[in-house]
Amino acid sequence: MGILRLSHVDVTVTDLDLASAYYTEVIGMVLVERTADSVYLKCWDEADHHSLRLTYAPRVGFDLMSFKVERDDDLSQLENAVARYGLPVRRLSRGDSVGQGESIRFETPSGHTMELVHDVRRLGSSLPRVNPQPFLYRPGGDGGLPGIAPPRMDHVLVTAEEVGESTQFYADVLGFRVTEQLLDGHGHQVGTWMERSHSPHDLAVVSGPNGGLHHFAYWLDDWDHVRDAADILAYNGISVDVGPTRHGITRGSTIYFFDPLGTRNEVFTGGYRPDPDFPMITWTEDNAGRAIFYYEGELNDRFMKVHT
Amino acid sequence: MGILRLSHVDVTVTDLDLASAYYTEVIGMVLVERTADSVYLKCWDEADHHSLRLTYAPRVGFDLMSFKVERDDDLSQLENAVARYGLPVRRLSRGDSVGQGESIRFETPSGHTMELVHDVRRLGSSLPRVNPQPFLYRPGGDGGLPGIAPPRMDHVLVTAEEVGESTQFYADVLGFRVTEQLLDGHGHQVGTWMERSHSPHDLAVVSGPNGGLHHFAYWLDDWDHVRDAADILAYNGISVDVGPTRHGITRGSTIYFFDPLGTRNEVFTGGYRPDPDFPMITWTEDNAGRAIFYYEGELNDRFMKVHT
Amino acid sequence: MGILRLSHVDVTVTDLDLASAYYTEVIGMVLVERTADSVYLKCWDEADHHSLRLTYAPRVGFDLMSFKVERDDDLSQLENAVARYGLPVRRLSRGDSVGQGESIRFETPSGHTMELVHDVRRLGSSLPRVNPQPFLYRPGGDGGLPGIAPPRMDHVLVTAEEVGESTQFYADVLGFRVTEQLLDGHGHQVGTWMERSHSPHDLAVVSGPNGGLHHFAYWLDDWDHVRDAADILAYNGISVDVGPTRHGITRGSTIYFFDPLGTRNEVFTGGYRPDPDFPMITWTEDNAGRAIFYYEGELNDRFMKVHT
Amino acid sequence: MGILRLSHVDVTVTDLDLASAYYTEVIGMVLVERTADSVYLKCWDEADHHSLRLTYAPRVGFDLMSFKVERDDDLSQLENAVARYGLPVRRLSRGDSVGQGESIRFETPSGHTMELVHDVRRLGSSLPRVNPQPFLYRPGGDGGLPGIAPPRMDHVLVTAEEVGESTQFYADVLGFRVTEQLLDGHGHQVGTWMERSHSPHDLAVVSGPNGGLHHFAYWLDDWDHVRDAADILAYNGISVDVGPTRHGITRGSTIYFFDPLGTRNEVFTGGYRPDPDFPMITWTEDNAGRAIFYYEGELNDRFMKVHT
Repeated sequence: MGILRLSHVDVTVTDLDLASAYYTEVIGMVLVERTADSVYLKCWDEADHHSLRLTYAPRVGFDLMSFKVERDDDLSQLENAVARYGLPVRRLSRGDSVGQGESIRFETPSGHTMELVHDVRRLGSSLPRVNPQPFLYRPGGDGGLPGIAPPRMDHVLVTAEEVGESTQFYADVLGFRVTEQLLDGHGHQVGTWMERSHSPHDLAVVSGPNGGLHHFAYWLDDWDHVRDAADILAYNGISVDVGPTRHGITRGSTIYFFDPLGTRNEVFTGGYRPDPDFPMITWTEDNAGRAIFYYEGELNDRFMKVHT
Repeated sequence: MGILRLSHVDVTVTDLDLASAYYTEVIGMVLVERTADSVYLKCWDEADHHSLRLTYAPRVGFDLMSFKVERDDDLSQLENAVARYGLPVRRLSRGDSVGQGESIRFETPSGHTMELVHDVRRLGSSLPRVNPQPFLYRPGGDGGLPGIAPPRMDHVLVTAEEVGESTQFYADVLGFRVTEQLLDGHGHQVGTWMERSHSPHDLAVVSGPNGGLHHFAYWLDDWDHVRDAADILAYNGISVDVGPTRHGITRGSTIYFFDPLGTRNEVFTGGYRPDPDFPMITWTEDNAGRAIFYYEGELNDRFMKVHT
Repeated sequence: MGILRLSHVDVTVTDLDLASAYYTEVIGMVLVERTADSVYLKCWDEADHHSLRLTYAPRVGFDLMSFKVERDDDLSQLENAVARYGLPVRRLSRGDSVGQGESIRFETPSGHTMELVHDVRRLGSSLPRVNPQPFLYRPGGDGGLPGIAPPRMDHVLVTAEEVGESTQFYADVLGFRVTEQLLDGHGHQVGTWMERSHSPHDLAVVSGPNGGLHHFAYWLDDWDHVRDAADILAYNGISVDVGPTRHGITRGSTIYFFDPLGTRNEVFTGGYRPDPDFPMITWTEDNAGRAIFYYEGELNDRFMKVHT
Repeated sequence: MGILRLSHVDVTVTDLDLASAYYTEVIGMVLVERTADSVYLKCWDEADHHSLRLTYAPRVGFDLMSFKVERDDDLSQLENAVARYGLPVRRLSRGDSVGQGESIRFETPSGHTMELVHDVRRLGSSLPRVNPQPFLYRPGGDGGLPGIAPPRMDHVLVTAEEVGESTQFYADVLGFRVTEQLLDGHGHQVGTWMERSHSPHDLAVVSGPNGGLHHFAYWLDDWDHVRDAADILAYNGISVDVGPTRHGITRGSTIYFFDPLGTRNEVFTGGYRPDPDFPMITWTEDNAGRAIFYYEGELNDRFMKVHT
């Protein structure tokens, strides 16, 4: 009941062909559909229509983050909850968006356009549902997936001027559960990590301008796939931003890097599996370095300052 | 809302000291409490009082499987649902069980004693909740954990004469979601895998005598920890039953082995992360070998016949 | 000075097309050359002409094992040494064998045809020698290598009636260094592992009929590649013989399996890196199970009895 | 015949207790012997007396690098070769150095004191030579090794004003084989990697002041142990210099970090296994970034400038 997980991230790109080539050839997503101004992509283990939409625009930006709800009822209930909170909610009809039916949209206190959707076209993953092999076979010689080929999208991290207030909205109104928080010296939240899918985070908010996208992340199955991802990124001339390294927060292993147009991507693996009774973890300011990059023990400027 | 996960497995052992030594020294669980006839153990990343209870008895057996529910309300609602299904339900009071408060118990159609509990004493995991390191440091020289030291218990697999009927109870009455099913040549279920915690399975049922325990399983974080577990088992003279190998069902990597008194244990890792909209996977009889042991492609007698 | 490593293994197959398909598509070797009755293959990180020759014959068999010597002088010196030992030596001229120049051949006391060669045609590996990437990029979408794609051949294990006598020849006459030995209850060698390339073994001999081939083995870079190999074998319907498991002897991780015509293959990784001052390891009969299969702790009949 | 491998590295430290604590507790070496001014340490899989000597001195420095030769004869032959090259050679007697007998010492053209030794006291590794388990069991609860516990020392990287000239000496006079070279824009060597033990490098030279030590490196068995090492370093408050990352040169995976007194350490794994017929790899100036740090694609100042 309620939100299940991140459904798709919609970003704008200044070169649709270049972006499309990168997300298919280097990341290894499946190109699902292409319209006049947009490309829709999914990962091989995702059953829904798409998890990434790229739209041409004169500048790189973050259109919206869409989350999938479990039942049709959830949509109405969350619509009411958001309205009660005082935010205007817009309902989109079937046909308004590619690959999905009705949805609701609203601007969150962190200045982001958020979409909730239940009715998503089901394409199925790249594996059969009857007697599937337990991995994606990627032969070198024919039509397998190139690149990193992550099984699925994992989470999105956005920026907000008031992390505490934003988090309260996501938690109280939308039902996100806070797994970890990073506090400044005055005890105010400067970062929060929230989940719905029993993973360390589906959505995180850190201090920054309202409406900003810090990165979206792909799931990988283990640390060896992190190495393989690094190999493939370097082979394709994509320099890493940070990593391979490990987060204190989430315990996850990670690489950050930028797509050719400047949007930050992450590959992520590991971490615990929190149920709703997971006791929230707190990080204090003096441990902020280890919290974010456990191995380096410090943050770098680019990681703190650059977002879209 | 509803069942969160496996809370604890209660088994009987014919030698409490030997069992206790094995589960602390070879498995690497934390001994939480010892009473006259029982030992209570937890894994290092578990916050609840215990996930395994060993009780002395003249023969090795399976007392019960206990699942934790999210809220106190869930206990009453599930109590009513089980009663409506026609099964007698017994309510235990605070003080009846070590480490937990009120709970309900009933015998399931598969002949197993099942317990549901919400009020569990919270001991906390072995990591602090403020600025924790993202792994368990296990120094060789002092009080770290010996053995495999899995972070947590993962699931239980039981046997039933009527897998289909049992599964229907677990699904319809208790809200388990079936992720995978194995069908015989007539299309009848001979194995089902069910989850509540967004993992491939918290509970599974395969054909066999009512009331049987095939194994309970510990989570490991990756394939390299599976190798380490195999090393440690062999070093301690524990011969493996099957593995390291991989399941077609769940996609997980695994080793099966027996504790010194004859109860089968598993270490398990990998697999997908199913949300409630996960499309069920079906395996047909002709693929039963690959379904269970993907590498071997066939089942062995011991695996099929031996349970407690 | 002296023998460097295994150069190539020559086996006969009863179906050249099937064998060729298996070694290119499932193993992922590069097909270098095909003649009327033979196929020559190499691994992607090997610079020499071939490491496997498949020749059509009415029955599956083991033609010879060829080892490369460091210098041309070594060939004459070893020729003399073998002759002094009393074995007839045949010298082959350039043109007698595909992909190589002069070589010597003789039948060893273990009943195997052994070839020594220095002059081998150098084709280069699949990576450039200037600014190479540190891994083989295997895109899904074009002409990468399918299958397991091991970087190189590693070792060969043969059978002999008199392991001790055979070993003495390999050690004293050809300069192999014994890294490990397995003794029976009377202290006689029933298995020996010998190296020239500073790896745990380039050649091993175990008890069995003279002239037999137990298996030849491919190197993999780590335990995760062992899992990937198991995935690919199972996906291709190749059932494993034993493994994934670990050897006590060599410390290596391993899978054994059969090519479609019945010759046993192995993928192997890990182990120590012995210099010539490596102190030999001894295994006693009561530990033979752990010596060979550390996790299982026991040998199986098929492993002991089947060879070509 | 000739040099086998790196025998030991002798460095000076300004705090012998602190250094000793770090190399035993964080690195996880075995403390073999302590004299008035020095501590001798070995790794658990090394059979020789020590691979690291720490000596108290008012400033951190690099005393010498010692290489082990295969036979006693090799010592005389190399002594003559060095003398013929025109360098003064000093012969040390038994008793002059702890843990070893006769040795020779000389200052190389790169300004380093180099020692060659054959007669080293054999202590044996931490595993038995009869029926050893294939790994070091490190129980948490008793006397296992803490820290990273690398199995052995791997290589040393030194700095020299004239890399080409230095390399020629190491190659022509001492028999090192160059596996890789990095050229500047004029085609001059600014880095060379050389081996004797059939590994990517036992000794490397890069541009810098004569006599400098850039780092010495420990071997780890795989990429997962690299992660574990990073975990343990961070847990102990040791911030990484660079990594986990990968080298283009050697293909190895790596972390660089500093001991508490300022000497750079590395943990290293992977790479190929070169025989003497290995075709040398060349890197050009425009690929220097990828050559050293394949993932980052660029060098950092600290890595280039800091050495001891």
